[in-house]
Amino acid sequence: MDIGFIGLGAMGAGVAGNLVKAGHAVTVWNRTASKADALVAAGARLAETPKAAATGMHIVFSILADDPALQAVLDGGDGLLAGLPKGALHISLSTISVAMADHAARLHQDHGQRYMSAPVFGRPEAAAAGKLFIVAAGATADLDEAAPVFAAISQKVFRIGETPSHANLIKLCGNFTILAAIEAMAEGMALAEKGGVPKAKLLEVLTGTLFDSPVYKNYGAALVEDRFTPAGFKAPLALKDMRLVGEAAEKNRVAMPLLSLLRDHLLETLAKEGEDIDWSGIGRTVARNAGL
Amino acid sequence: MDIGFIGLGAMGAGVAGNLVKAGHAVTVWNRTASKADALVAAGARLAETPKAAATGMHIVFSILADDPALQAVLDGGDGLLAGLPKGALHISLSTISVAMADHAARLHQDHGQRYMSAPVFGRPEAAAAGKLFIVAAGATADLDEAAPVFAAISQKVFRIGETPSHANLIKLCGNFTILAAIEAMAEGMALAEKGGVPKAKLLEVLTGTLFDSPVYKNYGAALVEDRFTPAGFKAPLALKDMRLVGEAAEKNRVAMPLLSLLRDHLLETLAKEGEDIDWSGIGRTVARNAGL
Amino acid sequence: MDIGFIGLGAMGAGVAGNLVKAGHAVTVWNRTASKADALVAAGARLAETPKAAATGMHIVFSILADDPALQAVLDGGDGLLAGLPKGALHISLSTISVAMADHAARLHQDHGQRYMSAPVFGRPEAAAAGKLFIVAAGATADLDEAAPVFAAISQKVFRIGETPSHANLIKLCGNFTILAAIEAMAEGMALAEKGGVPKAKLLEVLTGTLFDSPVYKNYGAALVEDRFTPAGFKAPLALKDMRLVGEAAEKNRVAMPLLSLLRDHLLETLAKEGEDIDWSGIGRTVARNAGL
Amino acid sequence: MDIGFIGLGAMGAGVAGNLVKAGHAVTVWNRTASKADALVAAGARLAETPKAAATGMHIVFSILADDPALQAVLDGGDGLLAGLPKGALHISLSTISVAMADHAARLHQDHGQRYMSAPVFGRPEAAAAGKLFIVAAGATADLDEAAPVFAAISQKVFRIGETPSHANLIKLCGNFTILAAIEAMAEGMALAEKGGVPKAKLLEVLTGTLFDSPVYKNYGAALVEDRFTPAGFKAPLALKDMRLVGEAAEKNRVAMPLLSLLRDHLLETLAKEGEDIDWSGIGRTVARNAGL
Repeated sequence: MDIGFIGLGAMGAGVAGNLVKAGHAVTVWNRTASKADALVAAGARLAETPKAAATGMHIVFSILADDPALQAVLDGGDGLLAGLPKGALHISLSTISVAMADHAARLHQDHGQRYMSAPVFGRPEAAAAGKLFIVAAGATADLDEAAPVFAAISQKVFRIGETPSHANLIKLCGNFTILAAIEAMAEGMALAEKGGVPKAKLLEVLTGTLFDSPVYKNYGAALVEDRFTPAGFKAPLALKDMRLVGEAAEKNRVAMPLLSLLRDHLLETLAKEGEDIDWSGIGRTVARNAGL
Repeated sequence: MDIGFIGLGAMGAGVAGNLVKAGHAVTVWNRTASKADALVAAGARLAETPKAAATGMHIVFSILADDPALQAVLDGGDGLLAGLPKGALHISLSTISVAMADHAARLHQDHGQRYMSAPVFGRPEAAAAGKLFIVAAGATADLDEAAPVFAAISQKVFRIGETPSHANLIKLCGNFTILAAIEAMAEGMALAEKGGVPKAKLLEVLTGTLFDSPVYKNYGAALVEDRFTPAGFKAPLALKDMRLVGEAAEKNRVAMPLLSLLRDHLLETLAKEGEDIDWSGIGRTVARNAGL
Repeated sequence: MDIGFIGLGAMGAGVAGNLVKAGHAVTVWNRTASKADALVAAGARLAETPKAAATGMHIVFSILADDPALQAVLDGGDGLLAGLPKGALHISLSTISVAMADHAARLHQDHGQRYMSAPVFGRPEAAAAGKLFIVAAGATADLDEAAPVFAAISQKVFRIGETPSHANLIKLCGNFTILAAIEAMAEGMALAEKGGVPKAKLLEVLTGTLFDSPVYKNYGAALVEDRFTPAGFKAPLALKDMRLVGEAAEKNRVAMPLLSLLRDHLLETLAKEGEDIDWSGIGRTVARNAGL
Repeated sequence: MDIGFIGLGAMGAGVAGNLVKAGHAVTVWNRTASKADALVAAGARLAETPKAAATGMHIVFSILADDPALQAVLDGGDGLLAGLPKGALHISLSTISVAMADHAARLHQDHGQRYMSAPVFGRPEAAAAGKLFIVAAGATADLDEAAPVFAAISQKVFRIGETPSHANLIKLCGNFTILAAIEAMAEGMALAEKGGVPKAKLLEVLTGTLFDSPVYKNYGAALVEDRFTPAGFKAPLALKDMRLVGEAAEKNRVAMPLLSLLRDHLLETLAKEGEDIDWSGIGRTVARNAGL
């Protein structure tokens, strides 16, 4: 299939690579063009504008850092909206706001195009291995149409319904739940440590009993080792995500005090540790606040 | 082995039953004697006092509701301390405070007896099935000695070290982590629901991706169904446990803001829903606070 | 002096009235023109656009609900920026964001005009009585120039410095501090009440000892009487202000957990009590959460 | 009148001095007897036990650090209960728990004695100047009887009702409200400072407008100067008071999230700054957490 692909960060490069491997004709665009070199060597074509990456395509994927990045790609004479054929499908893999997803859906509808939100769970290694989890929402026919392409890049697809932004809401809730688990482990470990028990012991018990899942194992290990750089997911990006959760919560009149706590701990961490730390670095803040 | 067993609540009855099944000579005591009927029918002997349940035993187990219940069993002319032979071992399976465990350890030492803390994770069904997780701390020789008996009642034993109360600290941290997971799911579900996505969808994504573990599956289902009675673990008992975590945190000068949030939500839940609700009922409070 | 005045809400009408009374030639504009009737009867002139209200003026005041309202008044062919003479001064009395104030300052500078932020403390009655507190920041010469005009509408002017948005930051901090005092009283009263002491007793002691100030007296009385309508300052506007505090805090990497609590209680109040409640209505939420 | 007086700390010494000055025959007791030297020189008599300080008295005052200190003074062969004549009145000025006040009231009733709670607001200087605020609860006849004595040590007496412990509840709520005001100022100041405005400016505006009261002026100055030693009221004592508020809140099923925040910030402060800091030192924690 003729596929456009916009955004070649750590995640996007892996996803696009799997589309090429699966035999699709992939045209890529990235703000920094040099990031496309490996893909081009593997058979992808390089476009000079988002518009060019969308022109003549059946499907265009985008995977970008935030709302403004997506807006910038959509708009203008060189933009995706200007290039995508009528009836073609834009699948947004980015973690963006609910409001932005609603906005993008309207824009595409106004242009006679189709839009789907399909944010993903997984680290860059999972993207490279084609093992992402996809949380997708859009018209059922669109979801059916995307299924074989999704198969090349993911281990599982969750269908959330017909409103694209609902997938974004779920994705944001997921990131919130991960950070909440990190906070819980960090507080427990601080207490254990000051109470005389090595924090690794607590983690061993948690993951050996009721918390036998990747989030607890992986982030728990980082907390035990006080290892927060290099950042797998940078704290400022996590703060952005938590702000997006907060915006949805405020709009829907939902009090989320645990979210508030996580935002405050991210801010504390950024104020004290700088901007180049993993989001699990809130654990260092919790430990420091305990005098450790 | 000659084993005494004190405390035949929902958990204790199951544990004692497995000790009988394993061929031990078990002498039981419970404040309400009638709860021993089934065990006696299965071969246990009924003692009239804690002292009688301890006299002549190699090992005495206790599994009681809280610190005062254990103190009451230890003390007095009819108490466990008065009956347990010199050199014999008291294994406390209860979820008690760190301070109480330290206190019990000292008392037994003063009486020439041995003490081990071995609190458990698991519901009454797991206790009945011999599938508990045991978190044990005490002298290494005592842990070795208890191993074959633990095998009859548990699926796994975690050794925390030589200070008995360290096991209690880990157990309390575990309950804290469970309640934190419930809070996180509840807040996410409230947002999903008010944002137009069924909360079951969020749970499906969480447990299908990064949270594939019993806590999220079991409590998540209760939250989806708004099903908090009959209580598997009553909110007032959870509040007690969280208070014990808080006492240890205050003594060790550890700020635990997530713990504070959980305590406040338990209080709100008790104030609004009454005392007969499961601890996961904090999810109802979160939902009500969102106007659901 | 020739003065333009934009925004005739409950606050603006009082301020403009005092300017007329003081003998200034006041030209007013309001989105709903009929709100100007009384002022016109008192001698003000009615303009048909913000531009017309600014044309030929020495000073133009604006007092509007929020950032978008100010942006709408500034922009476009009919806007304030298009009408205000070069060298003339725009004094913004509104409670707007720090970012919006910075933005307005830049826009005026680009147009060769002057800008001052001068948000106010006080209720509509204080505005009508010329008894506002003004928190002003801008060029010293501008502050000197505005002094006699401020005298007609205020009881006191605080000079915050030369950067206009600093006044907005202080104003936002002030509103935060007020809401914090309300929360503190509400929690104390809930405890007193459930502990058997009338909440009025607590208020009597607080205001009779260390809290002998208007915030505690006025809002305390509302809390005692559970009287939150009609709203003097609506909860959704307070939520907007707290969001603006939060935006400044996030940008400056400042964790403000008490702010987070206040935002959550405003959200809870809106979710449960609806949008037409005074911001002190968080006290009802606190009471309800205690089962009162 | 023959008056016994127990407890000669910074507060008690001032109160007792004023009783002597007012012409009462005062018999004092303190754990460290040397603290009575100045009072004895001024005309007081020194007792060797609490019992001796109570024997033959009409009224005995006590002002002690906490629940255990009061319990120790009440109990035993040398205790206050053993010495106080039938029908005589014990007035407890201490900041103790609601539960302890209820307990003391019962003990005195069992001994045919009378008990009143009369905790005070004010610093040692106010105690020395006879300018305390007294929050009193007890039988009306007892309050009437105490009035002339109170006149010698206070500027104002608040009558809370007939249940002694109600006065303690109000006193605890008062301390909570003070600490809440400190937290609010500290967060606002951190934001102001990082936003480019001197924190003294914020304080000037707050105390010059709506917060014209001692708490804001005095503690605000300490926050501006980052001056938290020597401690006027030590953080560990404040933590004790907040714990007592929390115990009353838990018993009455009242969620107090602001209280929780204050407790956590006291713990953080103690963990990071040590035990010898004023309770307003939470302001340093807030500043540090903002990276200041």
